[in-house]
Amino acid sequence: MTINHVASNLVDLPTEPAADPTWILIEEGFTPAREHEVESLFSIANGYVGSRGSLAEGSALSAPATFVAGVFSSGVGCVPELVRLADWSHLSITVEGHPLRLDQGQTLSHRRILDLRQGMLWREWRQQDVAGRITRLKELRLASLSDRHLLVQSVTLTAENYNGMASIDATPIGPLTQLTDTGITVVMADRTRLLDPKGGAIVSPAFDQLSFEIGCGETYRLDRIVALYTSRDTDEPRTAAQKHGDHVISDVDNIIVQHGDAWLKRWQASDLLVEGDPPTQQALRFGIYHLSSSANPEDDRVSIGARGLTGTAYKGHVFWDTDIFMLPFFNLTYPTAARALVMYRHHTLPGARAKAARLGYRGALYAWESADTGEEVTPPFVVAPDGEVIRILTGEQEQHISADVAFGVWTYWQATEDERFLIDAGAEILFETARFWASRAAWEEDGRYHIRKVIGPDEYHESVDDDAYTNGMAQWNLETAEKVAQLLAERQPAAWRGLSRRLGVDADELHLWLHVARNLYTGFDEKTGLFEQFQGYFQLEEIDLAAFPQRTAPMDLLLGRERIQRSQIIKQPDVVMLIYLLWERLPPQVRRVNFDYYEPRCGHGSSLSPAIHALVAARLGNLTLAARSFRQAAEIDLANTMGNAAGGIHAGAMGGLWQAAAFGFAGLHLFKNGPEQHPHLPADWRKLSTQFQWRGQWYQLTLPEGREKIWPKNGDDA
Amino acid sequence: MTINHVASNLVDLPTEPAADPTWILIEEGFTPAREHEVESLFSIANGYVGSRGSLAEGSALSAPATFVAGVFSSGVGCVPELVRLADWSHLSITVEGHPLRLDQGQTLSHRRILDLRQGMLWREWRQQDVAGRITRLKELRLASLSDRHLLVQSVTLTAENYNGMASIDATPIGPLTQLTDTGITVVMADRTRLLDPKGGAIVSPAFDQLSFEIGCGETYRLDRIVALYTSRDTDEPRTAAQKHGDHVISDVDNIIVQHGDAWLKRWQASDLLVEGDPPTQQALRFGIYHLSSSANPEDDRVSIGARGLTGTAYKGHVFWDTDIFMLPFFNLTYPTAARALVMYRHHTLPGARAKAARLGYRGALYAWESADTGEEVTPPFVVAPDGEVIRILTGEQEQHISADVAFGVWTYWQATEDERFLIDAGAEILFETARFWASRAAWEEDGRYHIRKVIGPDEYHESVDDDAYTNGMAQWNLETAEKVAQLLAERQPAAWRGLSRRLGVDADELHLWLHVARNLYTGFDEKTGLFEQFQGYFQLEEIDLAAFPQRTAPMDLLLGRERIQRSQIIKQPDVVMLIYLLWERLPPQVRRVNFDYYEPRCGHGSSLSPAIHALVAARLGNLTLAARSFRQAAEIDLANTMGNAAGGIHAGAMGGLWQAAAFGFAGLHLFKNGPEQHPHLPADWRKLSTQFQWRGQWYQLTLPEGREKIWPKNGDDA
Repeated sequence: MTINHVASNLVDLPTEPAADPTWILIEEGFTPAREHEVESLFSIANGYVGSRGSLAEGSALSAPATFVAGVFSSGVGCVPELVRLADWSHLSITVEGHPLRLDQGQTLSHRRILDLRQGMLWREWRQQDVAGRITRLKELRLASLSDRHLLVQSVTLTAENYNGMASIDATPIGPLTQLTDTGITVVMADRTRLLDPKGGAIVSPAFDQLSFEIGCGETYRLDRIVALYTSRDTDEPRTAAQKHGDHVISDVDNIIVQHGDAWLKRWQASDLLVEGDPPTQQALRFGIYHLSSSANPEDDRVSIGARGLTGTAYKGHVFWDTDIFMLPFFNLTYPTAARALVMYRHHTLPGARAKAARLGYRGALYAWESADTGEEVTPPFVVAPDGEVIRILTGEQEQHISADVAFGVWTYWQATEDERFLIDAGAEILFETARFWASRAAWEEDGRYHIRKVIGPDEYHESVDDDAYTNGMAQWNLETAEKVAQLLAERQPAAWRGLSRRLGVDADELHLWLHVARNLYTGFDEKTGLFEQFQGYFQLEEIDLAAFPQRTAPMDLLLGRERIQRSQIIKQPDVVMLIYLLWERLPPQVRRVNFDYYEPRCGHGSSLSPAIHALVAARLGNLTLAARSFRQAAEIDLANTMGNAAGGIHAGAMGGLWQAAAFGFAGLHLFKNGPEQHPHLPADWRKLSTQFQWRGQWYQLTLPEGREKIWPKNGDDA
Repeated sequence: MTINHVASNLVDLPTEPAADPTWILIEEGFTPAREHEVESLFSIANGYVGSRGSLAEGSALSAPATFVAGVFSSGVGCVPELVRLADWSHLSITVEGHPLRLDQGQTLSHRRILDLRQGMLWREWRQQDVAGRITRLKELRLASLSDRHLLVQSVTLTAENYNGMASIDATPIGPLTQLTDTGITVVMADRTRLLDPKGGAIVSPAFDQLSFEIGCGETYRLDRIVALYTSRDTDEPRTAAQKHGDHVISDVDNIIVQHGDAWLKRWQASDLLVEGDPPTQQALRFGIYHLSSSANPEDDRVSIGARGLTGTAYKGHVFWDTDIFMLPFFNLTYPTAARALVMYRHHTLPGARAKAARLGYRGALYAWESADTGEEVTPPFVVAPDGEVIRILTGEQEQHISADVAFGVWTYWQATEDERFLIDAGAEILFETARFWASRAAWEEDGRYHIRKVIGPDEYHESVDDDAYTNGMAQWNLETAEKVAQLLAERQPAAWRGLSRRLGVDADELHLWLHVARNLYTGFDEKTGLFEQFQGYFQLEEIDLAAFPQRTAPMDLLLGRERIQRSQIIKQPDVVMLIYLLWERLPPQVRRVNFDYYEPRCGHGSSLSPAIHALVAARLGNLTLAARSFRQAAEIDLANTMGNAAGGIHAGAMGGLWQAAAFGFAGLHLFKNGPEQHPHLPADWRKLSTQFQWRGQWYQLTLPEGREKIWPKNGDDA
């Protein structure tokens, strides 16, 4: 259709991007080589749906993608991967027949701004066509945090120096309805409206092409709402999406404002203020933004994949990243979201039990890579270019995941004292994982239990015996399950009776758990205070990592897979990870000698690695090393130092970064009798201020001053 | 290459097809509409590899396929399906440039002969080209039973009335090496040789095209060997296949002769002679041929799919067809093959345990459809043409499979007294399936255990409560497991101690099994002697099947899915199946009233159905009905009465047919104290004679005369 107008009033968006540089991320100009990485970093998401920050009009280097949590289909080798939905925000705009594109005409200015504070992606763009017509565009995109089924795009288009015919094609690219091969229907209902310069609106249920005369200096505004429902949400996703889209399209400004308010509330609960170090401040907020964007307290049957909803890497699969690296942030700042994450592990217990059964064990062995059902979805092999079939062993061998899940359950319960959760779900996870370890560890002639043929967090070494992290965490798991059983039996005898009967846990089994825990080989040498990372590790080749100071590639690529396996170089903390998680159980001297021993052997081949070194170094008072590792962690996405941000942001690294700040530098320790801080602040951090929830109370932590309880901060847990 | 010859001696194949019409199946001429079905029926197989009886030169209606047992890849919806290998027997032959095809020139005669006795597919063909040249071809194809890695094709080509240039292209269609997405490599190595009329041989490691001058009356012979290995067999399948191919190509006649000898040995052990009824004799031998072709005693990690290795229907998946319908034949005639089948169920216990765990139960719940790992591989849904997603519930609900597997284990053990098997594998299956039923059955307020929401053998009714077959078999499973536990404890105390410790089976659990069995709801009405097929069945609509006498479509298609679910029409025996399997546990009157009640309600919508009615009717002395049902069972493939033989032969129905003859008409009962016969022979069966093994002894059964022990018949179990 064609519409003619003459008036020329402004049609403003209801908000502007934040200005404070620590609240925003800016991409100035357009750098083709960085585009995939920028798309990841500038993603918007609300835990239900996520969308990459691609150019609306596309480019040769654009890889737009929108994902819905929990909606998988089968990819290569039948490994489930998040379904890529239609490119809902695609726009083709022409002025007098000239397409508005970065590669046509001259770009006078172009920037994308990720507005962390408001959870919005902005784009500001002035483009001049070959005839000299200058068009100014401003685009806002968001995944609503106040109404998770909504995606919003608003674009204002201003003719700076011409009168002419503008044309907008807002047809999404790709099908708006998809049926996955797992039987899920996904429906996007898109609704658009065009505001003329006077604010008069033309609403369309979805249009292909709309043309209009724009006058010099006039601004038109296009709003697009996509309402999104799946058959996971409702039996009638099509009806739900259509109705919702119809209902809200005339109310876009309000939706934008409510979304901003929801983000404000999130930041009140989760901001971590660092004065004196703006790059750190920005990095922390960037991490908190993506963590918060990834969580959805309204759906406890999904969790957060290693790359959130921002890219295709790891196919949306959930790893220990969630339980060990991200969960602590949510425990203390967003407990309802934390609860959904641990409940996901409860809902996927059947998959974990199935995996244990398949491998011949009892109890629950969680999937190293987990998707919708909790079945193991690690690709079993890849085929090398020469046709060789290379087995991927993590799905079978990286079993510490079961203790990690249990540990996550425990941290959530410690932080919240959510007794209902413990009774209904948490205890079952603790018991079933303990049961797994008791069946997994084998009694040998040396009078000890051993756990052979595993992969620890250090994935450079496969099929190792008695990995220190695995065994240490298994021991913790067994002891904690027994402790929780005793606690329930005392405090909640009826619940305990029901649970123990249902699961068949009896006194004999509790004794077995303790027996295995107490006699489990740990690799600890009392003389040196060192844990041997696995049997035979000390005999491996020592390689001086300091000899590779400026390397940009990971050590396994530099040295080759074979050599690295024969060396002491590790991919990421294993013993040091154990020391961090079980800090209070180990004497100070043990923490220190192990860190000193393993730190120079760590190649940081995982994005999860440097933050933990930063954290432990800070706790040990080594601020130089801590600051260096912290920066390394901060730059994984912001400087794409690992070269793989194109596949999505590293949500686990972000959780690690937050932990390094909160538990490392700020020195927050969460003891039974309450939180304590033992800070080691970097010299330039003039002030650190944050707030957190612990067992129903809000605490304000301000350093260097101290900590105070600020309960009740507000009525709910946000 | 081109070779010129003048001599004209015959180069005969070392054998001829059997002549006795009860030993062969003949397809005269060529009927395009029947071709897919003929391809299935005329398949050759040896339990390791199977190949459809397609025309070597192909046609618009040809669907050649070769499958290797256990080699699956992911198909639609990621459901595993047998990999279709290259069309190894493809041949393009031209005479003076005219292709030898049925659709070019005039077919003077054409027939395919399935030689049941020698396990060979023959083809005899005279074709005249437009110039009047008459060429005679004779083809032999086999899957070697004496060397399962070999496929053999021999073709003689005779120029009846001309001199001319013949050309043969023997390039297989499709890749000879395949890597499946489950990581299995399959390698075919093809070797060809051409024999000139004097018997001089040209051996080629594989040629594309070979041309030669053939003189009037001369015969050339082409031999092709395909050696087949997979990475399931050896780490170096390529080397193994190449070496084997090289080794045997010069020895084709010997391979053909050895294959025939192996079949002769099989028939000595398994033939069931019926004098006076040639169609029945042929049908039984046809069934025995395909059953024997499907088994492989050398590989106990595969089993027999519903269609053997003869077609794509059901993707090669294994159902209860194997344990309940086919296994008894193998138990009594081919115990080493039977052992492989039950061991397959032991190797897939981890998958069955995983399925039970996933659904929240203990023990082992076998897959309704099972492939290589024992994971459930029933497609979870199909999409109707209108886009509706129709859930397939059998994978979750048809749980009687677990009792069927246990029953199969029991019948094998009863037949063989293979105590090593019982200790190493069988008892574990019995215990884990019993453990499943004990967790599956739920105690309710009426003081009984119930098994709700299942599908029985009668798949017309879904989500039913207390299916009579399921509950009856579960009860049997529980009691038998307890009995076996007691027996082991007495006879093999050390083995029992090890097993009970490993599986955690203790006295309490054995009591529980008996308790559940004794208090399990059975649907039995003492007053009428009837079992109600499931709760509420008696209240369903009665529909008179006699009103549909000449129907060719199944009842669920005629009446619609909804109506059939509300009716008493059943797809296949459920209560009657229970009565057959647990015959000795039920009083004669109960057998009779239930058969009389359910027989007229059975629509025979499954290929497994009529044979069981034939069997039970024969035992009950109703020979008219028995004969009618027996014929119905015999015609499923031979007359393609269900219209789906194109997807492969019905191996389960063939097992049922054999059981109807052996256990029905011949009235063989296998009691603890030895076999007995209570025959009810049809009037025209002048004589029935067969032999079988029972507990290490060979028996000769000759009716009407009687039975005699003939131990030892020969040195091994064949």
